[in-house]
Amino acid sequence: MTDFGVKDGAVAAMKGVALNLSPDLTIHDLTHEIPAYNIWEGAFRLQQTAPYWPTGTVFVCVVDPGVGTERKSIILKTKSNHYYVGPDNGLFTLVAESEGVEEIREISAANRLPNSQNSYTFFGRDVFAYSGAKLASAGIDFEEVGEKVPDNKLIMLEYPKPKFENGLISGGIPILDIQYGNVWTNIDPKTTNQLGLKIGDKLSVKIFDGEKKVFEGQMPYVHTFGDVKEGETLCYMNSLLNLSFGINMDDFSKKYNVGSGTNWRVELKKL
Amino acid sequence: MTDFGVKDGAVAAMKGVALNLSPDLTIHDLTHEIPAYNIWEGAFRLQQTAPYWPTGTVFVCVVDPGVGTERKSIILKTKSNHYYVGPDNGLFTLVAESEGVEEIREISAANRLPNSQNSYTFFGRDVFAYSGAKLASAGIDFEEVGEKVPDNKLIMLEYPKPKFENGLISGGIPILDIQYGNVWTNIDPKTTNQLGLKIGDKLSVKIFDGEKKVFEGQMPYVHTFGDVKEGETLCYMNSLLNLSFGINMDDFSKKYNVGSGTNWRVELKKL
Amino acid sequence: MTDFGVKDGAVAAMKGVALNLSPDLTIHDLTHEIPAYNIWEGAFRLQQTAPYWPTGTVFVCVVDPGVGTERKSIILKTKSNHYYVGPDNGLFTLVAESEGVEEIREISAANRLPNSQNSYTFFGRDVFAYSGAKLASAGIDFEEVGEKVPDNKLIMLEYPKPKFENGLISGGIPILDIQYGNVWTNIDPKTTNQLGLKIGDKLSVKIFDGEKKVFEGQMPYVHTFGDVKEGETLCYMNSLLNLSFGINMDDFSKKYNVGSGTNWRVELKKL
Repeated sequence: MTDFGVKDGAVAAMKGVALNLSPDLTIHDLTHEIPAYNIWEGAFRLQQTAPYWPTGTVFVCVVDPGVGTERKSIILKTKSNHYYVGPDNGLFTLVAESEGVEEIREISAANRLPNSQNSYTFFGRDVFAYSGAKLASAGIDFEEVGEKVPDNKLIMLEYPKPKFENGLISGGIPILDIQYGNVWTNIDPKTTNQLGLKIGDKLSVKIFDGEKKVFEGQMPYVHTFGDVKEGETLCYMNSLLNLSFGINMDDFSKKYNVGSGTNWRVELKKL
Repeated sequence: MTDFGVKDGAVAAMKGVALNLSPDLTIHDLTHEIPAYNIWEGAFRLQQTAPYWPTGTVFVCVVDPGVGTERKSIILKTKSNHYYVGPDNGLFTLVAESEGVEEIREISAANRLPNSQNSYTFFGRDVFAYSGAKLASAGIDFEEVGEKVPDNKLIMLEYPKPKFENGLISGGIPILDIQYGNVWTNIDPKTTNQLGLKIGDKLSVKIFDGEKKVFEGQMPYVHTFGDVKEGETLCYMNSLLNLSFGINMDDFSKKYNVGSGTNWRVELKKL
Repeated sequence: MTDFGVKDGAVAAMKGVALNLSPDLTIHDLTHEIPAYNIWEGAFRLQQTAPYWPTGTVFVCVVDPGVGTERKSIILKTKSNHYYVGPDNGLFTLVAESEGVEEIREISAANRLPNSQNSYTFFGRDVFAYSGAKLASAGIDFEEVGEKVPDNKLIMLEYPKPKFENGLISGGIPILDIQYGNVWTNIDPKTTNQLGLKIGDKLSVKIFDGEKKVFEGQMPYVHTFGDVKEGETLCYMNSLLNLSFGINMDDFSKKYNVGSGTNWRVELKKL
């Protein structure tokens, strides 16, 4: 996963480094279309997809506005037995929370692409792809990655957590379902249950960008898009089992100018 | 093949599901850039590429505006020994016609990702990737997919077929060659031969969007772009051996506002 | 590597052809987003990424505005033991220079997809993917590709070479680092050393589009983006060890309308 896009040769150089080390590695793309420098969105995409991947998978992750500065280069091992290779800049916030931190190691100079010491701006190729491929191909054990990071300390991003209070549920909008324009909250089944929400209920919904109210409206809570007429709004449980808002055959986020990120917040109550 | 794009984690979640089931599966991307909800274009992309793939290939296909409603989830086996996994909504119209239907089975609940019963909107991950991977990895035989669909009945889309009549040939414009702006018809060599068309012939061409004439002009029938001067129109046989229109080093579809789909039609005669 | 994009089925057809020939082939994407017909950018992407790939790698390369005309279809073997399959139109200029030409062979009719002789516009599928897969899967030896091209003659593109003269260094701008808007020159460490450039030095920079001066300014030579404040310009050594210009957290090329290609030139001196 990177924010490099696939129009240039950066991703291909990373894959070449990995395959040069071990031609039998299996490599897949999570996405390379994280918006440039958007650490939060990278954190979300990891949490969204990692649960479906086999134990032992090594995720090489590059969203790294601070490349070449003093932020650490690390490999995180989670309790789910996934490995995350990348910069310690918040990118691993959500997988650390949901999977649990087993151990973190700082990547040593020995696990850097040989003869790359004069390159300061492409850690994706020189450090992360190389050390990730070494680990994935069993060229090194996790213990050989480098020194243990004391107290498993990791840079963590702040964001609105889902909660139930005063008969309302609220939470954040971590991301948009961009291809279709749906709005995904981080309100999970546990929080939804506290409100006692059932299929067929009608909801009042408010969406805020910081202090500014951007949307206010009512919609039914249904299973899926086809349960409302074309052009009508709906609330549904998305594929991550979080509450989401959409319009059947239209784009909710564009129509109502709703965005996503750590600054966006939503409030719901039953009518 | 999906209409998900690759900016989010949907495709990566599908691949994770498949590899979690069988780590040795080989997975390739047909395209994930089918325009959202465009079943027709998905149908075309399958027909365009499937003939080049080995027998036994399992195509997992998701263009599914009706996800979660009562449309069937199926696996189609063709007489070419290809398997197509996806919704029964017309997506398999063209491969069914060109390869022939061997047998269709409805995917049973047993072939759905365990513990996904509360997710209603991501059949790509929960049903199609999972059951496709099970079949591709020989975890199940085709007979174990689910019940046989009676009479091999499949939802089929309507579109203009190529024909020769009154000295004219006509047909549809299933798709544009978008990267270069060429216009691809579905007029095949058999129909072209009925007109007696030969390299060097001059043609009169009319293009219609429904009843509206969008283009009328003359052009030579040549082998390839370099056979006319830069900026000149040409008619040629495209890589699917269908008649096509282009401009050497320019974009025919943009210049003349030509689109594609089941509503577009073309008429040709020899001058 | 192609200029086909991934919105249609062209790349998938090519991969099908290769896997149909040899199901065990490992296939990766360099990029399919070379701008349409841009041979120069294709040449650059090959040079940028090839050094990281294992010896014996077969690169199938299609940027081919002259498809179907009399330009040769070739496989180039370099002294680095890489194979490049594609049109002889300049696409291999930079890898030929940097890796050295070992031998060139013209692809014979025997190494063309069977029954594709009526298709004149998709050499990527019918000739390059097929012959490349045959070579990569050891279905043929290099000697069986076809006749040797006399004198290892290859079409080569012209472009500004890096040089040191009268206390100035100058060179070309082969490409932009498009995802971030940085400007990459082809000025290499050897040329940089002739100027005696050291981290912390201040530079005067001029950028030309042909004869027209597009940018003139001063900036420090630093290791990486974080070494200057947000919004400030910097000169740094990019991941290919060439001098480059950027703005910390902004887009240099957009801000100053700087492009790339064989017509762009840069001059630097130390202050």
